[in-house]
Amino acid sequence: MAKTPRWSYARAGVDRNDVSDSLAALLAGTRYRPSPRSGRLLDLPGHYAGLVRIGSETLAVTTDTVGTKVVLAEELGSWEGVGEDVVQVNVNDLAAVGARPSVLVDCILCARPDPKVFAAIGRGIGRGLKRAQVALAGGETAVVPDIVRGTDLGGTAVGFFPGRRRPVTGDRIRAGDVVLGIPASGFHANGYTLLRKLLRARSVDVRRPRPGARRPLGEELLRPGRIYVDASEAVADLSTTHGLAHISGGGVRNLVRLNPNVRFELDGWPSAAGVYRWVADLGEIDPAELYQTFNLGIGFVAVVAATAVDPTRRRLAAAGVRDSRVVGRVISGEGVSLPHLGLEYHGYA
Amino acid sequence: MAKTPRWSYARAGVDRNDVSDSLAALLAGTRYRPSPRSGRLLDLPGHYAGLVRIGSETLAVTTDTVGTKVVLAEELGSWEGVGEDVVQVNVNDLAAVGARPSVLVDCILCARPDPKVFAAIGRGIGRGLKRAQVALAGGETAVVPDIVRGTDLGGTAVGFFPGRRRPVTGDRIRAGDVVLGIPASGFHANGYTLLRKLLRARSVDVRRPRPGARRPLGEELLRPGRIYVDASEAVADLSTTHGLAHISGGGVRNLVRLNPNVRFELDGWPSAAGVYRWVADLGEIDPAELYQTFNLGIGFVAVVAATAVDPTRRRLAAAGVRDSRVVGRVISGEGVSLPHLGLEYHGYA
Repeated sequence: MAKTPRWSYARAGVDRNDVSDSLAALLAGTRYRPSPRSGRLLDLPGHYAGLVRIGSETLAVTTDTVGTKVVLAEELGSWEGVGEDVVQVNVNDLAAVGARPSVLVDCILCARPDPKVFAAIGRGIGRGLKRAQVALAGGETAVVPDIVRGTDLGGTAVGFFPGRRRPVTGDRIRAGDVVLGIPASGFHANGYTLLRKLLRARSVDVRRPRPGARRPLGEELLRPGRIYVDASEAVADLSTTHGLAHISGGGVRNLVRLNPNVRFELDGWPSAAGVYRWVADLGEIDPAELYQTFNLGIGFVAVVAATAVDPTRRRLAAAGVRDSRVVGRVISGEGVSLPHLGLEYHGYA
Repeated sequence: MAKTPRWSYARAGVDRNDVSDSLAALLAGTRYRPSPRSGRLLDLPGHYAGLVRIGSETLAVTTDTVGTKVVLAEELGSWEGVGEDVVQVNVNDLAAVGARPSVLVDCILCARPDPKVFAAIGRGIGRGLKRAQVALAGGETAVVPDIVRGTDLGGTAVGFFPGRRRPVTGDRIRAGDVVLGIPASGFHANGYTLLRKLLRARSVDVRRPRPGARRPLGEELLRPGRIYVDASEAVADLSTTHGLAHISGGGVRNLVRLNPNVRFELDGWPSAAGVYRWVADLGEIDPAELYQTFNLGIGFVAVVAATAVDPTRRRLAAAGVRDSRVVGRVISGEGVSLPHLGLEYHGYA
């Protein structure tokens, strides 16, 4: 028995039921579809990006914020990493439908604009743009002290499908396919509300390294998320690439977004190690909560035909992505299981 | 002499110099341009939307929030209007480059999601989608009580140029052109930080009508902004339409965004009347500040060749926009002047 209560997202102040009820209420009002004169929306409910056909092009659009990772950035006065994350959170969602990112717009809300902070955010965004090979096509900066304390960083990315490439939606995933994982660079930008509340409750000094680490914990936690555009570009044109997933909020449950009619058996998904292990122990976090909150070290996934594993890994390596590995396979059924950990999930959220 | 201090944006807590210094610092880091494989960004600095060429299509992208109008919505528990404004603030910026809006993504930040509030916001967004003839292609809802109090509403819209239409940038505006104005439905979503601070300082009860009005002031102030997509669609294909402007934050200064090498002499721009007059008097707002903060009753502008005034107005009327009128003309010089009020502006902000 745990002496202190176990930590979960609900305890950190985010109730997933309230969120999904509210989302359902919002979406009930927004189902209007214009005539095809305005383009044709392709329905992909629950997927990573919206797809719309305009003239001869199919475009992918996605919007996301860095979330409460910015609060840690503010506490430590370190903004470049979360600037890069503005790009990362968005382009990785485009990468998950196989779209090549083209442009990004940013949206910064702040209580009071500080040129030094903005310069650091700009450097970070710039580094992200370069890594993702996208251009900043505009943005909005709103000074709204009545709405935000500190700063919120978000953006929207637009991508397309070059040449004869088709969107990679996951609908062709079938039993027998293999799940390849590509490592993460840390927590990316997910789970920070829980992380921060936990660190505060346990009075952890983020200016010092955690046991077993050399860098200060704050620095470790502010490292920008890895950008998977190169990985997606390397495999999205292959007919044997059946699905791509960005492991963001929802952890391993993200795989369900690709295809609800198969079961992803992730017997090679990493167990908590390093900083993940330390956080899990610190909060005595229930394993079921752990794997649906954090990425546990895998930030992007490609689901490929069993015959294509080696050629896919070679293409990834040729594009500079040398650390892919098999983390599971597809079987008949539904949901996600991690048999080595006795965990099972049904549905995305 | 005013007995009480005059009201300005700076006094309301938003210092335009801090904002522009911070923006410059941000943009210094974000100038990266990818290879044309990722699309070609067309540089239109300071304009309403970013333009990018992808394959055979030119796309327009713009992002904006409703700003602090949401604080008033929260105070009055009335969310449908600001929901519609999420669409309005974005599609009107697309309308100002002559792009036909195709899709919108919304971004809602909140401290705590309330299904009733979200349902009302959804109804408002839905009404805006219908008016603007766009589809909702996705969105983000972030529950971030550590960053926002209340709620922030924003979005991003993507548009395109159907058929042989070209972007309307203002570069063809020349001396002799005529400025047509189309009425606003109120303050739209600009100037609310100043408005709210002023109402509070003067202890105005927004649940009652202002003198001379019948509806409660709060209701008058929460009316959603007019959507000008029909107006833009009616005239964007005409070669005699030289420029289009959405009169948003910056008021009449917005015209400078179209072309800095001519002077817009707005001798027919409305003087403060109705709710604008009441607000101006309440805050003893300096006229120069008034016209660069509020729209004064004109929300959208078309700058057209002098020979095209009548045919343009007929096309607008045929599209249901029967209330356009001449509000000024283009002469040689730079900036914006309102000679009947003795006002002159140089530069956008």
